[in-house]
Amino acid sequence: MGKDTRNIYLTNIPLQEAQNQYFSSFDIEEFFRKTEKVKVIDALDRITSAPVFAEKSSPSYNAAAMDGIAVIAEKTYGATESNPIQLKLDKDYIFINTGGCIKEPYDAVIMIEDVVEIDDEKVEIYRGAKPWQHVRPIGEDIVEGEMIISTNHKIRPMDIGGLLAGKIQEVEVYQQPKVGIIPTGSEIIEVSQPLEVGKIVESNSRMFAGMIQHYGGLPNRYPIVKDDYNLIREAICKAVEENDVIIINAGSSAGSKDYTVNILREIGDVVIHGVATKPGKPVILATVKGKPVIGIPGYPVSAYFVFEFFLKPLIFQYNRQVLPEGQKIKAHLTRRVVSSLKHEEYIRLKLGKVGEKMTATPLERGAGVTMSLVKADGILVIPQQSEGYEAGKEIEVTLLKSSEEIQNTIVSIGSHDIVMDIIGNQVHKENPQLFLASAHVGSMGGIMAMKKKECHIAPIHLMDEVTGEYNVSYVKRYLKDEKMTLIKFAKRSQGFMIAKGNPKNIEGIQDLIRDDLQFVNRQRGAGTRILLDYSLKGAGIEASQVNGYDREMTTHMAVAAAVASGTADWGLGVYSAAKSMGLDFIQIGWEDYDLLIRQEDLIKEEIIKLIETMKSNSFIKLVEGLGGYDMKNVGEVLFI
Amino acid sequence: MGKDTRNIYLTNIPLQEAQNQYFSSFDIEEFFRKTEKVKVIDALDRITSAPVFAEKSSPSYNAAAMDGIAVIAEKTYGATESNPIQLKLDKDYIFINTGGCIKEPYDAVIMIEDVVEIDDEKVEIYRGAKPWQHVRPIGEDIVEGEMIISTNHKIRPMDIGGLLAGKIQEVEVYQQPKVGIIPTGSEIIEVSQPLEVGKIVESNSRMFAGMIQHYGGLPNRYPIVKDDYNLIREAICKAVEENDVIIINAGSSAGSKDYTVNILREIGDVVIHGVATKPGKPVILATVKGKPVIGIPGYPVSAYFVFEFFLKPLIFQYNRQVLPEGQKIKAHLTRRVVSSLKHEEYIRLKLGKVGEKMTATPLERGAGVTMSLVKADGILVIPQQSEGYEAGKEIEVTLLKSSEEIQNTIVSIGSHDIVMDIIGNQVHKENPQLFLASAHVGSMGGIMAMKKKECHIAPIHLMDEVTGEYNVSYVKRYLKDEKMTLIKFAKRSQGFMIAKGNPKNIEGIQDLIRDDLQFVNRQRGAGTRILLDYSLKGAGIEASQVNGYDREMTTHMAVAAAVASGTADWGLGVYSAAKSMGLDFIQIGWEDYDLLIRQEDLIKEEIIKLIETMKSNSFIKLVEGLGGYDMKNVGEVLFI
Repeated sequence: MGKDTRNIYLTNIPLQEAQNQYFSSFDIEEFFRKTEKVKVIDALDRITSAPVFAEKSSPSYNAAAMDGIAVIAEKTYGATESNPIQLKLDKDYIFINTGGCIKEPYDAVIMIEDVVEIDDEKVEIYRGAKPWQHVRPIGEDIVEGEMIISTNHKIRPMDIGGLLAGKIQEVEVYQQPKVGIIPTGSEIIEVSQPLEVGKIVESNSRMFAGMIQHYGGLPNRYPIVKDDYNLIREAICKAVEENDVIIINAGSSAGSKDYTVNILREIGDVVIHGVATKPGKPVILATVKGKPVIGIPGYPVSAYFVFEFFLKPLIFQYNRQVLPEGQKIKAHLTRRVVSSLKHEEYIRLKLGKVGEKMTATPLERGAGVTMSLVKADGILVIPQQSEGYEAGKEIEVTLLKSSEEIQNTIVSIGSHDIVMDIIGNQVHKENPQLFLASAHVGSMGGIMAMKKKECHIAPIHLMDEVTGEYNVSYVKRYLKDEKMTLIKFAKRSQGFMIAKGNPKNIEGIQDLIRDDLQFVNRQRGAGTRILLDYSLKGAGIEASQVNGYDREMTTHMAVAAAVASGTADWGLGVYSAAKSMGLDFIQIGWEDYDLLIRQEDLIKEEIIKLIETMKSNSFIKLVEGLGGYDMKNVGEVLFI
Repeated sequence: MGKDTRNIYLTNIPLQEAQNQYFSSFDIEEFFRKTEKVKVIDALDRITSAPVFAEKSSPSYNAAAMDGIAVIAEKTYGATESNPIQLKLDKDYIFINTGGCIKEPYDAVIMIEDVVEIDDEKVEIYRGAKPWQHVRPIGEDIVEGEMIISTNHKIRPMDIGGLLAGKIQEVEVYQQPKVGIIPTGSEIIEVSQPLEVGKIVESNSRMFAGMIQHYGGLPNRYPIVKDDYNLIREAICKAVEENDVIIINAGSSAGSKDYTVNILREIGDVVIHGVATKPGKPVILATVKGKPVIGIPGYPVSAYFVFEFFLKPLIFQYNRQVLPEGQKIKAHLTRRVVSSLKHEEYIRLKLGKVGEKMTATPLERGAGVTMSLVKADGILVIPQQSEGYEAGKEIEVTLLKSSEEIQNTIVSIGSHDIVMDIIGNQVHKENPQLFLASAHVGSMGGIMAMKKKECHIAPIHLMDEVTGEYNVSYVKRYLKDEKMTLIKFAKRSQGFMIAKGNPKNIEGIQDLIRDDLQFVNRQRGAGTRILLDYSLKGAGIEASQVNGYDREMTTHMAVAAAVASGTADWGLGVYSAAKSMGLDFIQIGWEDYDLLIRQEDLIKEEIIKLIETMKSNSFIKLVEGLGGYDMKNVGEVLFI
């Protein structure tokens, strides 16, 4: 495992340049020209590789366009209201339905509404018929030999209708590119396998498969390959034989077990190793036997972007489809974003429409945070030449969700509690057009976001250190010139979360000075942090005396997870978090977790729906079932 | 077949009212609540019926975030450039790769780039490590119990990634609504069957199937049922048992063979029969055993719209998805559109961006014209209260294609020739981002469209009746103040198209006065019509002497089809049309079919590409292969 086996040098080529250089390194026309014949009825969303000309006219005969009688126009001339003409069945007319065939000697149709039946064999008409009236002439819709759809056309439902009407049974289409996906890594397992320490569930290949399907390719996922030079080499060689495009996931960097680049150098050409993007830098762009083979980094967010940068354009090009431009929207950054001159950076954003302003809040930037992709509403691209943007700047965002969805989202910024997830879910379940998005920045963060009009609601639980009362005095202090409201939500039980069975014999607040205990704290501004500081003061303990006071987590669940995993012995948080992680709990009090909102917003339809849902029996039951919540005042409104 | 068996009364209820009334006539929650469990890896595009909470944290252990060495932070304190610290393998550090597990006693990672190896068992570092630096703490991405996605969420590729990362193997989703489609009609056949006179290829059910797939349902198409009361009744009863939603196609009107409404009255409730839309009026909205059963009219365009009006919202509602608003665009009508106060009307439009103006040209309005749907770029809705719009009015259009595609379309308006289809196809084949759309209004129509700046190019073939020369004098006369250009395209052979074998012994122009012959003409303004009139004058024949002079067709192929089907004995047109329909041909001359274009547009990239394609060998070969074309001057540019 010496340094010599590592490839620590990556290039830093700008994305656009890397794309141009790589895409011109193999002959797309040469390799992507496989076509096949498919039945028209199976051709939805396939791309034609040749124009399609009608085999028959439609209609293929002169057809009645109305229900009525077929007549010989000449015999109807001169009929008027005062001078009706009588016609005889099977001599002057026959009954005909829409679509029926007009044969000699008949050459026109009179609508049934304009016909008076005298008896079973005679009718009277009051107006003459022009030749070919209400007749769909042969070829009215489609004429034999006419081009119905052109080459490179993605077949839509109405095209299938048109093709069948032209009596086409089969069409020639491009074969969908088969994309082989090789997941590699000794630490990764299938989701069905037990998750031991040191193991990670393989997920990227399945995300790729979904993207490939959406973009018009055929995913072909191989079993996981261990970090073994020969095994990986074998897998790649096999995949190159069996696919049009090949992805190798993870091991694209330059670590001691990143064999991929060396293998690709051996069996093909590595065109580029490393691009100037973040995430996505350690990508390998290679060709083997003229086929594109791409090594993609393992972090899910990097994996997503590298796919978007290189695989998406490739699949579209293979299918002769123009890459659609993403929908764009303008928004204002709520925070400063710093970026390096070393790379172009792709930032996931949460968007929110509060009042007339669209705001954009950067999500966690770690490449390992899959949830930042799941939660993202849009992407901000910071060019390589920029060092970032200041808060407030108007930026252009590429949307990942529809703008309707974003417009219909209640933006919640403040303290985290699982009841926010649950209420969000319930509101959306009962009102499919309505969404609730929560950002977790602590109670003080929520108040500040409310002040800056970046959210509709702010969940807070802030104890007044003098009166011991919750929330009201903070709202009065920080939003003193505004008419605010608190919607009472839940009283919740706060206390210390400790390992199951309390192995270190923790008794309470006084143990915070013990040397043998590691505490894990919440971030500054979190209501729980304020509660801790208040409790410390009451107990006469200095922050500096607490081991781990500086280790900060941003949610109750993260604190609980730290305790559950043993990296900390205890932390302060809500009962529900302790319970869901199977931890012991020493209660130190009840606190008020309320929703702060502007008075003027109370009458908004979405807020009315939110409060309705909060007060519903089904929701209250759900929350009380978690334990540690008291819901008796839920939905009460407190004007401040 | 007496009048008594007919149901001639349809209601005329406004669409919105019909939708509200119908959708509230069955309990969607009651009938649409079937759910199923599917594997996460098969869950793409499915809709969750419950929130999904993480089963495990991710990472589920403290993981190295970098390749490097795992260290005990305490032992690294104080290291500087001038005062490096040496560490011993397996005592003070171990090598670790990204994703590796950080176990006691190690609590931090130093990047490999910051490590200097002294020998196989010793390294030197120049900076201290903070505890937990470059470590992804347990739950950094996902914390056990955290909500990954909510109810009513359409699962995207990144969601699959997130779910797997949370160790979720299966998710609960709504069952996709199964939509039974029953095609009915004694005149319809499968596309694979021979097309006899009076028969029509069944196409609507296949268009529906595609729409159902796109909208998130499962199509279930039944065999064609003949127009027989009992057979149709049987088919509907069976389909009601086997599906969630049922479509009966054709027979929804009130003709003598339109049994559907009576059957539905018998076995269920007909909520509405007839809505105030055009197309789409004769729809049947019924329920049987509480399930929606919809009778859809047979004309393809009506069928399409009725599906959009009633089935699309139903499928979206079933899936708890909000119906997306179509993309809208502003455009200017090129022609007057008249509409009745009786109904809301849906007009298919061809859009074109010429200069800065987006223009909208109504397509054929017949409900039987499938091609008007295939060709349409957008839809204009004329409200019931409106009698239509004047030419030039700015209207709002709902797009059926992407606005990029429309912006990248060369708009051609003028005379029809199959070479326009072929060049359009070739241009798009060679430049997937570029499209060519042709509207067929005859040569004079093309010149007028050019004058009004409604097209980029106008294909024309207009003979000067004095000089016998083509095109130039017309351009000088009608566009005298503008700098115009003719791009030479094809010389083509014009003549009389007559039935194979010339059964009526037609010899030439003089036969136009024969009583026993039916002629079929082209529309006023068509170059071929001008040629006919010129020829008539030369032969001393009056228009009124020609049987069928008033019967007008808008394309060569339509004229050929009329002759081929025997509804006319002869017509004037180009050789290629006669040939493709297997007709005999008596040539009367060669004419110049050229493209009129503004000089300033010649330098546009898309026009340069068009001319390039016109001059390419492959294109010339293709056209010459048709017969009747002389391409020797193709691509030459004539300034006027």
